[in-house]
Amino acid sequence: MADIQNGNSCSSSPLELFERVTAQGEKVRSLKAGKASTDEIDAAVKLLLSLKVTYKTATGQDYKAGSPPVDFSPVSNNGPTTTQDEDFVDPWTVQTSNAKGVDYDKLIVRFGSSKIDKELINRIERVTGKTPHHFLRRGIFFSHRDMNQILDAYENKKHFYLYTGRGPSSEAMHLGHLIPFIFTKWLQEIFNVPLVIQLTDDEKYLWKDLTIDKAYEYAIENAKDIIACGFDINKTFIFSDLDYLGMSSGYYKNVVKVQKHVTFNQVKGIFGFTDSDCIGKINFPAIQAAPSFSSSFPQIFKDKKDIQCLIPCAIDQDPYFRMTRDVAPRIGYLKPALLHSVFFPALQGAQTKMSASDPNSSIFLTDTPKQIKTKINKHAFSGGKDTIEEHRKYGGNCEVDVSYMYLTFFLEDDDKLEQMKQAYTSGALLTGELKKVLIETLQPLIAAHQQRRKQITDEMVKQFMTPRKLAFDF
Amino acid sequence: MADIQNGNSCSSSPLELFERVTAQGEKVRSLKAGKASTDEIDAAVKLLLSLKVTYKTATGQDYKAGSPPVDFSPVSNNGPTTTQDEDFVDPWTVQTSNAKGVDYDKLIVRFGSSKIDKELINRIERVTGKTPHHFLRRGIFFSHRDMNQILDAYENKKHFYLYTGRGPSSEAMHLGHLIPFIFTKWLQEIFNVPLVIQLTDDEKYLWKDLTIDKAYEYAIENAKDIIACGFDINKTFIFSDLDYLGMSSGYYKNVVKVQKHVTFNQVKGIFGFTDSDCIGKINFPAIQAAPSFSSSFPQIFKDKKDIQCLIPCAIDQDPYFRMTRDVAPRIGYLKPALLHSVFFPALQGAQTKMSASDPNSSIFLTDTPKQIKTKINKHAFSGGKDTIEEHRKYGGNCEVDVSYMYLTFFLEDDDKLEQMKQAYTSGALLTGELKKVLIETLQPLIAAHQQRRKQITDEMVKQFMTPRKLAFDF
Repeated sequence: MADIQNGNSCSSSPLELFERVTAQGEKVRSLKAGKASTDEIDAAVKLLLSLKVTYKTATGQDYKAGSPPVDFSPVSNNGPTTTQDEDFVDPWTVQTSNAKGVDYDKLIVRFGSSKIDKELINRIERVTGKTPHHFLRRGIFFSHRDMNQILDAYENKKHFYLYTGRGPSSEAMHLGHLIPFIFTKWLQEIFNVPLVIQLTDDEKYLWKDLTIDKAYEYAIENAKDIIACGFDINKTFIFSDLDYLGMSSGYYKNVVKVQKHVTFNQVKGIFGFTDSDCIGKINFPAIQAAPSFSSSFPQIFKDKKDIQCLIPCAIDQDPYFRMTRDVAPRIGYLKPALLHSVFFPALQGAQTKMSASDPNSSIFLTDTPKQIKTKINKHAFSGGKDTIEEHRKYGGNCEVDVSYMYLTFFLEDDDKLEQMKQAYTSGALLTGELKKVLIETLQPLIAAHQQRRKQITDEMVKQFMTPRKLAFDF
Repeated sequence: MADIQNGNSCSSSPLELFERVTAQGEKVRSLKAGKASTDEIDAAVKLLLSLKVTYKTATGQDYKAGSPPVDFSPVSNNGPTTTQDEDFVDPWTVQTSNAKGVDYDKLIVRFGSSKIDKELINRIERVTGKTPHHFLRRGIFFSHRDMNQILDAYENKKHFYLYTGRGPSSEAMHLGHLIPFIFTKWLQEIFNVPLVIQLTDDEKYLWKDLTIDKAYEYAIENAKDIIACGFDINKTFIFSDLDYLGMSSGYYKNVVKVQKHVTFNQVKGIFGFTDSDCIGKINFPAIQAAPSFSSSFPQIFKDKKDIQCLIPCAIDQDPYFRMTRDVAPRIGYLKPALLHSVFFPALQGAQTKMSASDPNSSIFLTDTPKQIKTKINKHAFSGGKDTIEEHRKYGGNCEVDVSYMYLTFFLEDDDKLEQMKQAYTSGALLTGELKKVLIETLQPLIAAHQQRRKQITDEMVKQFMTPRKLAFDF
């Protein structure tokens, strides 16, 4: 959808378009009445006709004098669209009928982003001198917007910063929630740049049946898990929206700037909001957009308004940032660049995103070794055959096997992973054996996380969440 | 919110409404063709849109040019309603066809507020031991909500606080803008309570063609005029939204609470917003609502969430606070009480509210004695007769005479005012003589204001606008 954002079909609201058509109609009439030259009249009529086409494209309705567009359905491919055989992806729902998961190549086309190809991965390696993370090598981060701009900046020793986040809907985070943070930590290390992490406790209060205090409490608990990923306290600022909006001289101003340049029609198109939604939901996209602009963090960037932002996130968050990229140039800011990850599959299969509210759909960061073992053995969807005999004969299907998918996320050793794949596909490796490898990979990984989390004191959380200068001079 | 509008949207037939929408549409087109001022066009478009809402409310159908309503079913009587013989009042448009001005008694019924009657005025006098302000005695503050609750609190030595505000749309304030501040200052003095004054620079940025910096600059300039009214620095906190939202640990949390409990349908009904409005406008009512709750000002009220709020304002601001009162109990807060004033008439007559953008519609706080004299002599609408002879014979009409109306606001001496009224009505006093009294009343009043404003330093503005404890213990 890159062209939509750059183009101007969306920059005028339907009402503005309506008024432009009306005004042009009046101009044509007055030219005719004033006996203007044929050329002049022809040119004005041409413009009138093309405005009418634009109007129809934007609203799906013919222009009718005196009938401003009251309600309309955009014809464009903007927004959460889905057809019977297509996946549905927006920030709240991910749905696919395919056991292999969402068709990400199609999503790239539909969202108008770019594929992270071999060439880009090679450039990252060349520019940073570091081996690309296995999330890049294995296509877990598979799509981007303007990543080459960021690499240009890095090569030219220009600053940029990282922005990612989490919606704290409960105390317990699961494995899938770690993906953006593991990758962001790696990015921070190889590029050595400031990082801001947004906890959208306001969003969770607005969407869920939660009190403000509860949402904030979850934000603090989630911050501990995030800190336990190993972020550098001197280079990382974590913030709760509920807190930080009342502490920043820049954030609210940027929120208002975004608010002025996005209409209800637009958020309706992008996020599927309806007239019955509360105004908090309708406003929230501006709250998630504003941290994409460095002036939201004057304590870090001083008065610098032109530090570009790179956002690593799961692809379902892209609608927020498509909107942000549409607004940015109109308020004098740089568009944020993006790196998109695939979804982490639920234990039951890749058809849905994991849900923090179904304990058996995911492995939680609080699970014991025994729980991990039981969950995987009992719930992890298998791509193996029904009987050992058949499995030995036909082999298993890695494309739908959840244990194998999880290993692509967490088994760092490329050779061992490839070995598993071949053995499972050939039938040499049984599902139970594959599950055992996964269990033995995850048990120490989660135990280590729990160990690190235990060390996180309230004082450390407070430090990470205090607006302050980081270890960079601007 | 059933009690609010009590509206009678059905008192005009659908066909009459249809014709009003059509006529207003024509008016908008002709204003645009005639290159009228943006403000004038905006006001006409707003009225058009709200007429369409009324039309839809009454008929259950969208207005379609050229398609009069055939069959219809009323939907609800919610929302900004107006009929052919009724006034239109919302925060952006005040319209009446009556030279005496808006019919305030009807407005009380339509808005569902209560009249400030003799009994309430007597109670204020009894409870405070002070002579009621002439704004009360003369019906300039004419309507209220829950003022008796506030007097109960005062009698029981329970705390309450005052909240009023201003939208800083330009540097220059006019006479009419002083009304709420003059009255609020009096309230603060007789009740001895904290006062918070909101400058909605964010609103002006969202609604007008202004930069954020310009809107903030206007807020600071307006603050000087407000301070010049004589507020006590130890009891008054003035804040710019753009500033204070980033400085308060309580304000944004209350904004989000309000946001969660108001839908787009509701603000559409109350304020006439459309799908083409930016999300900032749609969100703004929450920003104006939140200062009605004491927890938005922890520096003043500490952790007290149950200090009731009394809001003196012009009646056009009531829609914001009807919404606030609807939300308050659902988020565990007290409903704010209100005192409503009439509109200050334009020099040209009471049909419209004064406009800061038309220099000849009003007397500005920056006008020289000569400008004041010229404006009144040249532009103040007269209720006198065409010839001296006729005037002596039939007398003048105080009900439509703008000079007389202005005197009711600014000539404090009741006896002298009554004397003017009788002499003008009998024909003994000529328009020129009445204007002379007004000129001689306003010239020293405005000169004194200018004198006081000159004394206001940037340091004082900064002090008034610093979040801090006031001279009250909570």
